[in-house]
Amino acid sequence: MVVELISVGTELLLGNTVNTNAAYLSEKCALLGLSLYYQTVVGDNEDRLSGALKTALDRSDVVILTGGLGPTQDDLTKETAAKVLGKKLLEDAHTRKRIEEYFAGLKVKTIPENNWKQALVPEGAIVADNQNGTAPGLIMEENGKSVILLPGPPGELKPMFEKDIFPYLNRLRPEIIYSVMVKICGMGESAVESEIQDLIREQSNPTIATYAKVGEVHLRVTAKAADEKEAKKLVKPVVKELQKRFGNHIYTTDEHVTLEQAVIQMLRERELTLTTAESLTGGMVASRFTDVPGASEVFRQGLVTYSNRAKRKLLEVKKSTLKDYGAVSEKTAKEMAKNGAFITGADVCISLTGIAGPATEEDKPVGLVYMACSYNNKITVQEFHFSGDRAKIRETSVVMALTLLRECILEEA
Amino acid sequence: MVVELISVGTELLLGNTVNTNAAYLSEKCALLGLSLYYQTVVGDNEDRLSGALKTALDRSDVVILTGGLGPTQDDLTKETAAKVLGKKLLEDAHTRKRIEEYFAGLKVKTIPENNWKQALVPEGAIVADNQNGTAPGLIMEENGKSVILLPGPPGELKPMFEKDIFPYLNRLRPEIIYSVMVKICGMGESAVESEIQDLIREQSNPTIATYAKVGEVHLRVTAKAADEKEAKKLVKPVVKELQKRFGNHIYTTDEHVTLEQAVIQMLRERELTLTTAESLTGGMVASRFTDVPGASEVFRQGLVTYSNRAKRKLLEVKKSTLKDYGAVSEKTAKEMAKNGAFITGADVCISLTGIAGPATEEDKPVGLVYMACSYNNKITVQEFHFSGDRAKIRETSVVMALTLLRECILEEA
Repeated sequence: MVVELISVGTELLLGNTVNTNAAYLSEKCALLGLSLYYQTVVGDNEDRLSGALKTALDRSDVVILTGGLGPTQDDLTKETAAKVLGKKLLEDAHTRKRIEEYFAGLKVKTIPENNWKQALVPEGAIVADNQNGTAPGLIMEENGKSVILLPGPPGELKPMFEKDIFPYLNRLRPEIIYSVMVKICGMGESAVESEIQDLIREQSNPTIATYAKVGEVHLRVTAKAADEKEAKKLVKPVVKELQKRFGNHIYTTDEHVTLEQAVIQMLRERELTLTTAESLTGGMVASRFTDVPGASEVFRQGLVTYSNRAKRKLLEVKKSTLKDYGAVSEKTAKEMAKNGAFITGADVCISLTGIAGPATEEDKPVGLVYMACSYNNKITVQEFHFSGDRAKIRETSVVMALTLLRECILEEA
Repeated sequence: MVVELISVGTELLLGNTVNTNAAYLSEKCALLGLSLYYQTVVGDNEDRLSGALKTALDRSDVVILTGGLGPTQDDLTKETAAKVLGKKLLEDAHTRKRIEEYFAGLKVKTIPENNWKQALVPEGAIVADNQNGTAPGLIMEENGKSVILLPGPPGELKPMFEKDIFPYLNRLRPEIIYSVMVKICGMGESAVESEIQDLIREQSNPTIATYAKVGEVHLRVTAKAADEKEAKKLVKPVVKELQKRFGNHIYTTDEHVTLEQAVIQMLRERELTLTTAESLTGGMVASRFTDVPGASEVFRQGLVTYSNRAKRKLLEVKKSTLKDYGAVSEKTAKEMAKNGAFITGADVCISLTGIAGPATEEDKPVGLVYMACSYNNKITVQEFHFSGDRAKIRETSVVMALTLLRECILEEA
């Protein structure tokens, strides 16, 4: 089955907005085993939109249009699609009621007149409720083809896609698909791939797809079957085999769980508290932890000691250590982690020091990073030589620090 | 003049990569006053790419293709474009030499055989050197139309576009354009727009375009003229007028300078040192400062006091303050800023405390944020009620903290 995306919005053509919806939808379509050959972006212009939709309908089975469902005169995706398919627009009582409820929830008394336009629905269309806005999603079916209209804001589009559109597309297929995401840290992409060469060579159903992320590798195991139960049965032994091969390197098999969430959860289960002692990353590790709601149970404080003086004063790194070995050294990383835990009374402390560039420091090369983890009277230290620019080196360091922290806890368990 | 973008790459169709190049190039084309009606994404497939290019050439004057210039067999953008335009591929001695030099710079002795494919150039094409890789940019002209091929990696594409392609497109126009970006903080979009309503109403050349960013508003002043000198002369009085109207709210008129860079620069000029005391943002403000190379001159340390205990122990916030007013209060923000400066010996300390959600705390609403700045024996505190999700509230808080810090320094100057 062939699917095609059309993103509608002048803001995309002006470069004011990055088209993250296209990447999101494309990934989901790939997961569904749909073939996607074209993405098109057009402005809020009836002629060009209508032309793009006709071209797409000629060559694809499903066309997903995003954007242009707002309440203003400029928004004409629904009107244009209805015209191309020869459908009348009729007011949908259910959608009208939902718009009323949405504004009531916002404590807005007078609903702007133009919002009622959003209650108009092409005749025969399936309505997908919008949990986070006023524009409903719409599915129109005609001559065995489907045209799907989705609102542009990602906060509205994504939940709607997961709840209604993904299952709809899954039902269109002769078989349904089911997948599990296995997330791996502490191993590079090529190491992961060589570990599963045989599985990839032999694969047919389920399949295993590899995604390299910064400091992580994700494996998606996808099965096709007549129903979900059957598909789950196919996926299960493969996930088990991956768990056997990668062991503790797998930090989750839940698509929605991030590495920082997994680490926070692990510390929470063990009732451990955490401190960060950062130089190089200057607060990035701390902010990554505090991205997670409820992190405060585990993460109580972080110290950013960017200067040597701060390393001495806040973390009591010895003057002689800084003088003899430098701020970017195994010894400094160790003292930062050890003293960080001691001073704050935390059970675990992770420290980072390194050279992000662009300039070298202490006659040491850009990309040299030391990180240490203090836990259970033991200090583990690692040395890295990262490549890339300042941002890349810092970003990779954050992920490797989370990984080191996780490994140190697991080793002692 | 009409321009069109074609992004080539199966990774875009699989959703593995977000198409940031399209946004970047679209913004630049808008700046050049070019009309852009379509963006298309196709995979590394000769038939579909060739079809997309022919369609684009029918309706546009300039077609920019990105991606698919790599050394592998899969990369066929150049080969396909040359075929569509009926051009032979010939080895370019200059490009061959540059590839040799590139690998020499990497200390690679043996150049992979397939890289020589990248030295082949369509006959008559203009070559744009790649400063950061081996695939050159190529400009092919035919029947008054231009086809421009650019490498896909943004780190190669952007510098090449700025250096060679932007000037090329500027020369194609009957007039050249020149623009200045005026960056404003501490004012909302509608306040900015109402301040310049008259200028926008009367505008013809130069024009003023508004871009709303998180916590900032950018105004681009663009003039068209016969030459750059003339265009600069047109832009100058408008920028001056904006400076008169917005005064200190303008933190830079340099497109490449960020708010954190401007603040660091300001502190550096005044020889002031800075500390952060963060609860809500958990290290994001510190990491924003340390994004800037050389920040260590100014920013020596940051304290992330996420728990009440950490606020007491690390920042000596009074127990009674936390008990009587709560962690999210004007009084706590003030003590954090005051004590943060005192304890670390920094000249300036910015503090943040608030509720990012999703859960309310201390019976206070999500989005309530207090921030304080201690400088010169004076503490300025601000209360905010932000909307949006956890990430949005934290991100907006960071920018408002930078803005508050900047205002406090400027007031005392």
